[in-house]
Amino acid sequence: SGSSSGAVTRETFRQAVINTLERRLFYLPSFKIYGGFAGFYDNGPPGCAVKSNILSFWRQHFVLEENMLEVDSPCVTPEIVLKASGHVDKFTDLMVKDEKTGTCYRADHLLKDFCKEKLEKDLSISPEKAAELRHVLAVLDDLSSEELGAKIKEYGITAPDTKNSLSDPYPFNLMFQTSIGPSGLSPGYMRPETAQGIFVNFKDLYYYNGNKLPFAAAQIGQAFRNEISPRQGLLRVREFTLAEIEHFVDPEDKSHPKFPEVAKLEFFMFPREQQVSGQSAKKMLLGEAVSKAIVNNETLGYFIGRVYLFLTSLGIDKERLRFRQHLANEMAHYAADCWDAEIECSYGWIECVGIADRSAYDLRAHSEKSAVPLVAHEKFVEPREVEKLVIAPVKKELGLAFKGNQKMVVEALEAMDEKEAMEMRSNLESQGEVEFFVCTLGKNVTINKNMVAIFKEIKKEHQRVFTPSVIEPSFGIGRIMYCLYEHSFYTRPSKAGDEQLNVFLFPPLVAPIKCTVFPLVQNQQYEEVAKQIAKSLTAAGISYKIDMTGTSIGKRYARTDELGVPFAITVDSTTSVTIRERDSKEQIRVNVDEVASVVKEVIDGHSTWADVLWRYPTHSSSAPVDE
Amino acid sequence: SGSSSGAVTRETFRQAVINTLERRLFYLPSFKIYGGFAGFYDNGPPGCAVKSNILSFWRQHFVLEENMLEVDSPCVTPEIVLKASGHVDKFTDLMVKDEKTGTCYRADHLLKDFCKEKLEKDLSISPEKAAELRHVLAVLDDLSSEELGAKIKEYGITAPDTKNSLSDPYPFNLMFQTSIGPSGLSPGYMRPETAQGIFVNFKDLYYYNGNKLPFAAAQIGQAFRNEISPRQGLLRVREFTLAEIEHFVDPEDKSHPKFPEVAKLEFFMFPREQQVSGQSAKKMLLGEAVSKAIVNNETLGYFIGRVYLFLTSLGIDKERLRFRQHLANEMAHYAADCWDAEIECSYGWIECVGIADRSAYDLRAHSEKSAVPLVAHEKFVEPREVEKLVIAPVKKELGLAFKGNQKMVVEALEAMDEKEAMEMRSNLESQGEVEFFVCTLGKNVTINKNMVAIFKEIKKEHQRVFTPSVIEPSFGIGRIMYCLYEHSFYTRPSKAGDEQLNVFLFPPLVAPIKCTVFPLVQNQQYEEVAKQIAKSLTAAGISYKIDMTGTSIGKRYARTDELGVPFAITVDSTTSVTIRERDSKEQIRVNVDEVASVVKEVIDGHSTWADVLWRYPTHSSSAPVDE
Repeated sequence: SGSSSGAVTRETFRQAVINTLERRLFYLPSFKIYGGFAGFYDNGPPGCAVKSNILSFWRQHFVLEENMLEVDSPCVTPEIVLKASGHVDKFTDLMVKDEKTGTCYRADHLLKDFCKEKLEKDLSISPEKAAELRHVLAVLDDLSSEELGAKIKEYGITAPDTKNSLSDPYPFNLMFQTSIGPSGLSPGYMRPETAQGIFVNFKDLYYYNGNKLPFAAAQIGQAFRNEISPRQGLLRVREFTLAEIEHFVDPEDKSHPKFPEVAKLEFFMFPREQQVSGQSAKKMLLGEAVSKAIVNNETLGYFIGRVYLFLTSLGIDKERLRFRQHLANEMAHYAADCWDAEIECSYGWIECVGIADRSAYDLRAHSEKSAVPLVAHEKFVEPREVEKLVIAPVKKELGLAFKGNQKMVVEALEAMDEKEAMEMRSNLESQGEVEFFVCTLGKNVTINKNMVAIFKEIKKEHQRVFTPSVIEPSFGIGRIMYCLYEHSFYTRPSKAGDEQLNVFLFPPLVAPIKCTVFPLVQNQQYEEVAKQIAKSLTAAGISYKIDMTGTSIGKRYARTDELGVPFAITVDSTTSVTIRERDSKEQIRVNVDEVASVVKEVIDGHSTWADVLWRYPTHSSSAPVDE
Repeated sequence: SGSSSGAVTRETFRQAVINTLERRLFYLPSFKIYGGFAGFYDNGPPGCAVKSNILSFWRQHFVLEENMLEVDSPCVTPEIVLKASGHVDKFTDLMVKDEKTGTCYRADHLLKDFCKEKLEKDLSISPEKAAELRHVLAVLDDLSSEELGAKIKEYGITAPDTKNSLSDPYPFNLMFQTSIGPSGLSPGYMRPETAQGIFVNFKDLYYYNGNKLPFAAAQIGQAFRNEISPRQGLLRVREFTLAEIEHFVDPEDKSHPKFPEVAKLEFFMFPREQQVSGQSAKKMLLGEAVSKAIVNNETLGYFIGRVYLFLTSLGIDKERLRFRQHLANEMAHYAADCWDAEIECSYGWIECVGIADRSAYDLRAHSEKSAVPLVAHEKFVEPREVEKLVIAPVKKELGLAFKGNQKMVVEALEAMDEKEAMEMRSNLESQGEVEFFVCTLGKNVTINKNMVAIFKEIKKEHQRVFTPSVIEPSFGIGRIMYCLYEHSFYTRPSKAGDEQLNVFLFPPLVAPIKCTVFPLVQNQQYEEVAKQIAKSLTAAGISYKIDMTGTSIGKRYARTDELGVPFAITVDSTTSVTIRERDSKEQIRVNVDEVASVVKEVIDGHSTWADVLWRYPTHSSSAPVDE
């Protein structure tokens, strides 16, 4: 079928990319000499350079451009912090165990694999059965532990390696646990995200920002998830680099002054409604998405636009990038709205950036746990008159009536909300006394008119105190890198036509090395010129590689195309040299003393290749430098 | 006494620095709202910027300049890797426990505190006793577990908080332990250094480098040490950033082609001999230290020189920086030589960079554990004739004589080194038989002439196979930062003379923000000019802060001096503005459209402040811009 041949093509393509990446040491399995460990990968030299370029650009594009406050907090995190955030209790996946060997599996993975294989390979199943399996796949993420267990039993699913029976599913916490200090009494975890390190610092950051909202804080760092059984190579790993922004904003004003700068961007968006009604993602103007309230607010919209610009500047293909809104069942109950930047690669659509309006959830959770109020203040220019409910228990009367229980009654009275209190007042007025349930006593008591005064008062307020909302763009740097590798990879025939050559089409911003310097032949004069050019490149701050080997020029080009080096400088005379552009293979001839500045101009984006192609003589293809 | 008043001054100075650092959020105690956790600190916004500047410069100065291969490996490390490196068995500190409460202390800390306090406060002790205590302090680091325990008993040292008695000292492993995957069967640790992540990749990196030596690999990343009871604030923490280099080199050729570039540097060196003979560190020419074999080899010397240039470029005071050679008892048995870059701060001399020639130890350890040979090959241009020892046991004869023990005897014969073998040959020739100890049998056996042939053979060899030596410069980034803060801090009186103002004298390279833009007064025209200048600074890639508040210009200068901002641009007209240098407080007048390029010139180091001071009119101190 078309879909299975598509799968073959995707698999072949992926293998070609991965082979090139591993051979050129963009990445390698960690601790390889010890057999490797699932879910851990190293970046090798070109991978490190790509990562460092992406992170520099991230700092430039987000932190510097928006004057964000960067912080750098530890990976080791005490339990109380992650208890407050909910991770200790809820950051789990459902796991089943082989009842004999103890090998662990993710329950949903086994059910998913079973349904998929049945649908693909068992031609004897009835249309009803097929529909049922497809339904299971569709609701997989919503199944409870009991429902998953029941389905595994019903379908007779066993351990894939041994065919032994499986335990019931039970939750496994995905945090790496450790212990802080020597006593063994202070549990800690390796952070599952960098965000909590920002939330706990809100008070100091707010002060640093002159007690003004909105402001954003940012953090780049390692995060950890002890996956049950990592799959999908570089996309699901146990340790990864996150870059996260927490933009704190007044919940009553989520407008953004710079929104107009991104409002005219148009790209694929996939709102909740389109997903539910079975439509596909459509190109949409960001301004329209916000004005039609498809995107909840301007600030969220602004970040969606900035993320789009960030990803496409790196070289992510616009046609394989979409912003997908979370469905109601995907979103935490407290979240106001949430969009994922998803990038399509050979594994399907991959969530690479999450952009969520998390309302006041996180700050409130830490306020409660720490008893330190994480709030903002809006000072009024003029004091405002506000009607305030006053509940004034008359302690003397209550003491006489309730003795040792007085305190509990007083607290219960003061804890009434406005509706309860106003109801009590009208009942006391009409009936003189009321029955009142005191939950700390577990019984009703009788309250009469003399025991409490309830009234409204006009007060002057000088400020409003509130918990800010937080809008969180969170970037999985490793996933972005992997998708970028796939989007940048292509092959082309060698000149002789006898082999396929690999090319990474990185923009200069991302390329691990910006240019190479080759003397055409091994000859002292040319090598001197090459060294002179190298010196001028260093002075201009351009990273380069010099290759003095006698290897054929075509092979040297092919080697550096495979690393995504955008420009190759070939020394074929002592006065002028050629600059070759990687993708077009076009060459221009430039004087030795101008080379560095021409390359710099194009790399910094002050000119395009087309501009310089027009300004300098092109190098004819019959000349010896040709591949 | 002078030394105790010195201590007071140091303490006061340190408090002033720390207060400024915390108030301006260079750093803050991690998880502060939960009461903080010993040994964990966050970098706040200016601290992050300083750190990021230092790491960029490190990449520039070491990785790019030397074409090093950067890698990026995980923090979570499987046990086998750290078993091979020796950390599982030996990365420990000796600990004692309060026998009632279980509180843990470092045994050497308690003994040290006791001796110091006794010496400082107990005036009744005899000169003999004082000498003994001073001796204990001198040999503290060399005491065994038993010796430490005996001293603690002898002196009657008890738990500092409760006065309860203490347990005997026992080793506590300083690695944070965790478990990889859900089974609980795969122990792991948070890496205590980044180096192991490089060693395990040696084979791939050597291949990437075209199977050529020497080359260096580098890694920047988090490392973890679960200190028993962290002290000394930012200097002894449980999580920290390391930047490490592993330079792999042929053990037979440790020369360095670029050594002449650093040979003329002269700075404080503190060789082993000077330490042992009670002398102090002396200024020495690096070239001389190497030629006199005080420093073991050129490559080690080259890195010492490069580290000196790195640290002083950041602003570390040359007069409070020394390179101290490890004493024989400090150095691992396998190390060829080891020097620490030590920086003096209020806590004393602090080890900030270690530069060690670790010989072949690490690669050999991983080769053995993994059974993957981590070796290099030197191909000979012409095959070389090499005399090779051949030991050829005659199995038939040995079998007849030793039956079941034959295998052990054969192995013992083959394991003889050249000297033993040649001795046996001459004895066999002269006596016909010899007594030979077989350690696996635990006894002597009699070997006669017919049982083994021993001779020398001339063989042709095409290559030499060897384990490279590694030279490791390892940088504690947090410690360097803290020392840099102390070296950069000074106070000066305000103009009115009524208060002391704090200044960080960071060079532009390190400064968290390069310049500020202030309109002199709140006025629309000036604000427009300020924004125009801000735009040109962004275009030039210069980080800045704009302050439009009506605060007095003096206060605005003071605020930014405290962040170490080197230049302040004050808009006091629409055509030209003033640029003020932080430390001299000198001001020049520059046209609006030239401002960005002048600032850039000085920041990039193309001109000095003195150069531009000479080129532009100075702003007279009677003008309104003055502080």
